[in-house]
Amino acid sequence: MSVPLDIAALGARAAAMIEELGAISESPDHLTRFFLTPQHRRAADLVGRWMREAGLDVSEDAVGTVRGHWHPAGADAPRLLIGSHIDTVGNAGKYDGAMGVILGILALDTIRAAGVTRPFGIDVLAFGDEEGTRFPSTLSASAAAAGIFSPATLAMRDADGISYHDALIAYGKNPDDIPAAAYDPSKVIAYIEAHIEQGPVLEAEGEPLGVVTAIAGATRLSVTVTGEAGHAGTVPMRMRHDALLGAAEMALAVERIAKADRHGMVATVGRMHIDPGSINVIPSRVVFTVDLRSGSDMSRREALERFEREAHRIADLRHLGVVISAFHEVGTVPCFRDLQLRLRNAIADLGHSSVSMASGAGHDGQAMSKLCPIGMLFVRCRGGISHNPAEYASPEDMGLAAAALVRFIERFKLPQIGDATGGVQT
Amino acid sequence: MSVPLDIAALGARAAAMIEELGAISESPDHLTRFFLTPQHRRAADLVGRWMREAGLDVSEDAVGTVRGHWHPAGADAPRLLIGSHIDTVGNAGKYDGAMGVILGILALDTIRAAGVTRPFGIDVLAFGDEEGTRFPSTLSASAAAAGIFSPATLAMRDADGISYHDALIAYGKNPDDIPAAAYDPSKVIAYIEAHIEQGPVLEAEGEPLGVVTAIAGATRLSVTVTGEAGHAGTVPMRMRHDALLGAAEMALAVERIAKADRHGMVATVGRMHIDPGSINVIPSRVVFTVDLRSGSDMSRREALERFEREAHRIADLRHLGVVISAFHEVGTVPCFRDLQLRLRNAIADLGHSSVSMASGAGHDGQAMSKLCPIGMLFVRCRGGISHNPAEYASPEDMGLAAAALVRFIERFKLPQIGDATGGVQT
Repeated sequence: MSVPLDIAALGARAAAMIEELGAISESPDHLTRFFLTPQHRRAADLVGRWMREAGLDVSEDAVGTVRGHWHPAGADAPRLLIGSHIDTVGNAGKYDGAMGVILGILALDTIRAAGVTRPFGIDVLAFGDEEGTRFPSTLSASAAAAGIFSPATLAMRDADGISYHDALIAYGKNPDDIPAAAYDPSKVIAYIEAHIEQGPVLEAEGEPLGVVTAIAGATRLSVTVTGEAGHAGTVPMRMRHDALLGAAEMALAVERIAKADRHGMVATVGRMHIDPGSINVIPSRVVFTVDLRSGSDMSRREALERFEREAHRIADLRHLGVVISAFHEVGTVPCFRDLQLRLRNAIADLGHSSVSMASGAGHDGQAMSKLCPIGMLFVRCRGGISHNPAEYASPEDMGLAAAALVRFIERFKLPQIGDATGGVQT
Repeated sequence: MSVPLDIAALGARAAAMIEELGAISESPDHLTRFFLTPQHRRAADLVGRWMREAGLDVSEDAVGTVRGHWHPAGADAPRLLIGSHIDTVGNAGKYDGAMGVILGILALDTIRAAGVTRPFGIDVLAFGDEEGTRFPSTLSASAAAAGIFSPATLAMRDADGISYHDALIAYGKNPDDIPAAAYDPSKVIAYIEAHIEQGPVLEAEGEPLGVVTAIAGATRLSVTVTGEAGHAGTVPMRMRHDALLGAAEMALAVERIAKADRHGMVATVGRMHIDPGSINVIPSRVVFTVDLRSGSDMSRREALERFEREAHRIADLRHLGVVISAFHEVGTVPCFRDLQLRLRNAIADLGHSSVSMASGAGHDGQAMSKLCPIGMLFVRCRGGISHNPAEYASPEDMGLAAAALVRFIERFKLPQIGDATGGVQT
């Protein structure tokens, strides 16, 4: 006997809640809602009210994460966690983060309204610091829940010189309570997050929902190519050591390597600076960045090695110098295979195919993976646009996503011994 | 019976004069000598003194060009003009321009000392505005001598807001006299200029002297490539429209086209600006410059057409937009074939081979070509370096260049009817 689902009604409720939460901003002209600000306070209060209306017990942890608790099997039963974040980038869209919190509340409201109980509890979590737009401290709220909050974070300062520590106190929190915000790993079953895709794949595939296989690992390189400056009119082509032409070949090699990969690798040369940058002088030095991401750490490492070989080959042929340095490195976080399967089954129950895909963007699940297995559900967004006021997911797609969470929860079985290791993607 | 030549002594004199003139600067730390400044006045006075010591009659025209006259056949006889410039760029080398004036004076001094006469006169010209570093008015001094001075030049202002007109008056000149500075074309045989190569070809060929075939024409393009911005982590490679990768292919096409040319074409992408220029955003717009020069206008036009086709082909394949606009265009100025031959013969007389080459840099000869046939002699410079304090030509090479001018003058015959058209390079 399944929970009855009115997907259109769920979608309409999600869309209305997105608008209400999206109106809470530091400015009426655009959506900007940073961590531990008055806007964060108002958003947390609204989310808390929604949770109470859905029949959840509401608490707030030491870094401001709002937690809505449903404990049909008692407070000591193991828990599923469903969450996302309510902070935003500057001039943001309304869906990034907010939608995942809203869908979690709607799913629990639907389940409770149907009188269903489960042999485990569920906490809906609304994190306040995923984007890292106020402090240089991405994922600090989920890190606190996962028990990996770094005390050094407290000393970080925002653009006005206010420390994380002082901002917490001004928000009414006590930094000494942060360790107590950590979940007991033995009590947590898994962390599930619904999020807009922030990319164009689902739209191109014509499917509303996707199941994330992994949050891609990323490496960022700085590549410096050195050649020899010279007069654009007097140095013959055969005598040149043009750093820009070498960099151009290397950028094209980056593309070639990513395209040849079979793990959905993406690689981008986003910045390029040319010295001296004069119309009539042969470029002597070019510095460019490479951002390389893959759902497989092995394929990422192989691609980096291949790029290094290619860059040196290109530099040698042109008698250029090249120095490559990695300045950022994050490992891949695989989503738990068993959770992927259950999310796909829930989507199939609704009559849809699901697209399996890596997430190129980062998410709270990266921190939560230190606590428990994670799973992620992606929702199609128009034009793949995110971090932009034009960000949009349709009510229909959001209704389907809420429904998929309902089916996932009602079909969820507590894992058997052995599942936890056997199911991990390596 | 040839004029006796002591090449080592000529070289030593040239080197000493280079040092003396090179010490006249707005600062003792580096060489900067702009048009119509007190430094220009001191340099003009020194050059005038040298001309008088060489037995020349000295005058100065309405834009400050110092003219040293040798008229063994009377003031009405046709004249050869030998010149270069005594202004400099900022933080300049000592050879660019100055050397050509000094070598002209040394050649005439040598010829007069030997008691030789010729059936024509010679004027040595020291122009004051070739570099265009004070006013945006390159070649205005040679333009006045050639009779193509543009009255609009008088309204141009320097960085301090002083007009060309007012600077001329402060220098003791009368702008109304400028038209009278123009030579009568019927009285001028040719204009000859010796200049450092400002490139690495002679050094690479192991030859001290080169003969210029043409002052290369140049086109400068601005190329705008437009694609689509996107998240570096979430847009799959196959769905990207990356403006930077398109621009990289176009820059490599520029190189390929120039290398395939047989007229010594050089082409340079010197500037490239990337939007938005973030590490984690796919570039949506790239603007770059192309500087393309060739000793043949036809090959330059063909290369531009080929680049346009290639750029559109690349843009089409990547679904990018591309807009190409030319913002600077100067036609090729061919050196007179007969003068090239005579300069080569003079060099051969000294036991050297000459290298024939186009000049990629601009020279006063471009203005003088509107008055009469032009010829240019290049002198090897170390490392091809110019517009830089490290600029250097050896005393030996300068001595050879002065000697070549002597041989050129003593062997020079007045052109026969028909030579003027038959000898023009087209």
